[in-house]
Amino acid sequence: MPSPPESDDGLPRRGFLAAGAGAFLCTIGAERVLVAKPGDAAKADAAARRVPVPRARAATAAPGAGPTEQLTFTTPQPQPGGTAREYWVQAREALWDIVPTRPRRDEWHGRAVAGPSVYRAFVYQQMTEGFAAPLAGPAIPGPTLYAEVGDTIVVHFRNGLSDRAGQALTMHPHGVKYNPEYDGVFLGDFTRAGGFVRPGQEFTYTWEATPDAVGVWPYHDHGPNHTLNTFRGLFGHSLAPPVTDLERQFQCINGRAFAGNTPTLRAKVGQDVAIHVMGMDSNFHDFHIHGHRWKDPSGTFVDTPAVGPNETITARFIEDNPGRWLYHCHVFTHQDGGMAGWYLVEP
Amino acid sequence: MPSPPESDDGLPRRGFLAAGAGAFLCTIGAERVLVAKPGDAAKADAAARRVPVPRARAATAAPGAGPTEQLTFTTPQPQPGGTAREYWVQAREALWDIVPTRPRRDEWHGRAVAGPSVYRAFVYQQMTEGFAAPLAGPAIPGPTLYAEVGDTIVVHFRNGLSDRAGQALTMHPHGVKYNPEYDGVFLGDFTRAGGFVRPGQEFTYTWEATPDAVGVWPYHDHGPNHTLNTFRGLFGHSLAPPVTDLERQFQCINGRAFAGNTPTLRAKVGQDVAIHVMGMDSNFHDFHIHGHRWKDPSGTFVDTPAVGPNETITARFIEDNPGRWLYHCHVFTHQDGGMAGWYLVEP
Amino acid sequence: MPSPPESDDGLPRRGFLAAGAGAFLCTIGAERVLVAKPGDAAKADAAARRVPVPRARAATAAPGAGPTEQLTFTTPQPQPGGTAREYWVQAREALWDIVPTRPRRDEWHGRAVAGPSVYRAFVYQQMTEGFAAPLAGPAIPGPTLYAEVGDTIVVHFRNGLSDRAGQALTMHPHGVKYNPEYDGVFLGDFTRAGGFVRPGQEFTYTWEATPDAVGVWPYHDHGPNHTLNTFRGLFGHSLAPPVTDLERQFQCINGRAFAGNTPTLRAKVGQDVAIHVMGMDSNFHDFHIHGHRWKDPSGTFVDTPAVGPNETITARFIEDNPGRWLYHCHVFTHQDGGMAGWYLVEP
Repeated sequence: MPSPPESDDGLPRRGFLAAGAGAFLCTIGAERVLVAKPGDAAKADAAARRVPVPRARAATAAPGAGPTEQLTFTTPQPQPGGTAREYWVQAREALWDIVPTRPRRDEWHGRAVAGPSVYRAFVYQQMTEGFAAPLAGPAIPGPTLYAEVGDTIVVHFRNGLSDRAGQALTMHPHGVKYNPEYDGVFLGDFTRAGGFVRPGQEFTYTWEATPDAVGVWPYHDHGPNHTLNTFRGLFGHSLAPPVTDLERQFQCINGRAFAGNTPTLRAKVGQDVAIHVMGMDSNFHDFHIHGHRWKDPSGTFVDTPAVGPNETITARFIEDNPGRWLYHCHVFTHQDGGMAGWYLVEP
Repeated sequence: MPSPPESDDGLPRRGFLAAGAGAFLCTIGAERVLVAKPGDAAKADAAARRVPVPRARAATAAPGAGPTEQLTFTTPQPQPGGTAREYWVQAREALWDIVPTRPRRDEWHGRAVAGPSVYRAFVYQQMTEGFAAPLAGPAIPGPTLYAEVGDTIVVHFRNGLSDRAGQALTMHPHGVKYNPEYDGVFLGDFTRAGGFVRPGQEFTYTWEATPDAVGVWPYHDHGPNHTLNTFRGLFGHSLAPPVTDLERQFQCINGRAFAGNTPTLRAKVGQDVAIHVMGMDSNFHDFHIHGHRWKDPSGTFVDTPAVGPNETITARFIEDNPGRWLYHCHVFTHQDGGMAGWYLVEP
Repeated sequence: MPSPPESDDGLPRRGFLAAGAGAFLCTIGAERVLVAKPGDAAKADAAARRVPVPRARAATAAPGAGPTEQLTFTTPQPQPGGTAREYWVQAREALWDIVPTRPRRDEWHGRAVAGPSVYRAFVYQQMTEGFAAPLAGPAIPGPTLYAEVGDTIVVHFRNGLSDRAGQALTMHPHGVKYNPEYDGVFLGDFTRAGGFVRPGQEFTYTWEATPDAVGVWPYHDHGPNHTLNTFRGLFGHSLAPPVTDLERQFQCINGRAFAGNTPTLRAKVGQDVAIHVMGMDSNFHDFHIHGHRWKDPSGTFVDTPAVGPNETITARFIEDNPGRWLYHCHVFTHQDGGMAGWYLVEP
């Protein structure tokens, strides 16, 4: 595929429209980079390294500044009876295998998957207290953080990127309450500390588990290079050639593609089962489990609900149907790209 | 459009991304075939004919095998007071006319539709007992199967494909309860009998109308070549050039395109109307009937709800607004591709 | 990007599939025009000027005509206690600036936006009684029309296009009740008066605010050239190069792109806030406000709901979280194309 033409300022010309489904445009501080072919991700990373550290008190002088820039915030505390749930999470580079079975295998179709399937990912990894050691392997999506209503979630976040990949990262949560200090978003001159965590630096986010936070929600990078970084593992479902430098477009569940590599879910008859499905890329998906239906929040029975980017749907039911079941996205191009897995129910 | 390059193993190279909206990749047993241009469908069919019949007891020896492969299942019976609803359904090839008016016409715009509009479809057709004779013409989607809670739906399914088109087919239902014997899905070595019905063979599916099955749900092929076969009529809304070998992409409702060809719905003022809309391809749609609004399951009034792949939305209302009304998908490219029709209300 | 080949009848050949996301096909009376490159919009406009005025009584003789063509309708009156809410709305050409800040600026990233950003739009503009003078500037979407249950909305609509751009326009509303006279839709031979308002002409629509009309709903052009006209401002969110003749694809909120240009929303802690989000193009979007969650109509807390074409979602909550917040579409390509803005909450 020919490289789309670009203008001097990095803006794609009309040819961009033909660049295909795997291409995307990143706004990175004052620059824009089209990520459409091998090497483009490195250009985006270079642009990300050039983003200046937001200056202290820049916000009050920025165009559009107003009273909100004068506000200061205190760190929220747990409600009476609640506790502070403390986590240590490090973002780092990792070699990630999208199809880890050996030989690489799609168990649905009983088929060998041609390699390679390993790429250089950015991942969140849960660490022990003080970042002393890994508590678990790297994960896509990142580690699950638990809290009950009234608790705070205190996340000590460390940007563990090397100098080579060096760029600011963040954690931006959905579903929980936070004040602007803990939003974890790069906002140019309006950026607060948690929105720009440089390599080697740490920042502690404090989020509140309010009653409206009940549920399962994603978090993801929202720093200056977040579009690329979410697509390379700090969020992401679909892993595209311009990001992975692999030959094919993988459609993933938890960073893995094809049954036997994606999570194999297990249950027994009689169990109260909840499967939480989050949209983790820019696509709309449909979640289908063979042999199962459940009620949506309005009380209507569904069996293949849509799930949009960053939406969560929960399939919750009392298990009554033993067997080997397939679950998959019902968008055929996603299903055939790897978005399928096993749900095994024993009597 | 140039043919996208492919690798030795049938996997598309990066150029696939530019292959356009009508192209898709099929996983067919151990092979993958890109369907992007005339002739590709025949290659997929050839691959489907090469899929070996799943071997008896292969499942217990397959990678990932476990206790679910030891399970055996009995055929469910109707609940007390329920009955077994028996159907005979044959899948076969048929010439299908997407724009059957003559001269071909789009009644919305008062416009002639340039032909041709006939393609070689795969369809489900309802038969009389014992497959003695057709009970109705072929239909896209297939015949509607009715049941009440407590009934079983007993479908005698026959793969009526010729040797030329010969490949295994299935019926996989949504919304109803079934055990793995009646899932109607090809699962490689894990396939049970109903997941691979060869040409000339029959299989009887038994599905249960449990309380959570109330509603309208699709069924479709889920055999080894299901992506292509659903797109060619065993499901399908959008009929694309690589599938039909016709010049244009049709966006269909029940296999027809453009008002006057798509179903003309009729009602009278005062009637209790229910229009069931199912997403039958890989696209997301929006259903709009001029002059009408209705409550969604949460009790909110809507007039253009989204409907994803394999989702069903039901527009239900007491008719109070006579006239000639247009119904259409509100995604403009779908609407302009033929996804519109008439709803005629008499006083 | 090369121009896709077209056949004699204006129908695109298979190459259309590679024409890219900004291209679309318009059905305009008896003609079809592919809008994919500069100059194509002028061809569509020329086709629109050629659409003949629907002939009186043509409907009863048209193919497919029936009893609904015999129906006549009276103008609805307000319910007891209701009033007629009268509006004057003119459609006209206007130069519209998608990025009106000077210098052009994306306040989120503190970034200059390279120009140009002005295009020739079609817009609805609210006028004083009798179209004497503008009551407000042109707006994308058009002026908000208010009513309470029991009222009628009486819209005096004037097609103010020049001869050069001259073509029939309409206003087609969602959410309210209307009879076929006031549907505002071009239906070929079945068109009633409000479905074809020629340049310089006026038509008065009367719509009813029935109990099921509570909410916020879009209206838009549904005349013979509606696909192009909605995309150029009589509806529209995404402004594509073939429509604007600008270099880049803008993803807009209310016709503007990038924070500081899109609406800056403001509230104070303790206020009852409702933000109505309508899908105004052919894309599916996801609406996220940093720091905020709310209940959907089923009572479930959400923070990034999907919104399809012509759907409305309402984020309603009691404000409790002061600060500068970003709101944006969570589809990354939309977000990076400009679909983001500020929500400023003061204590």
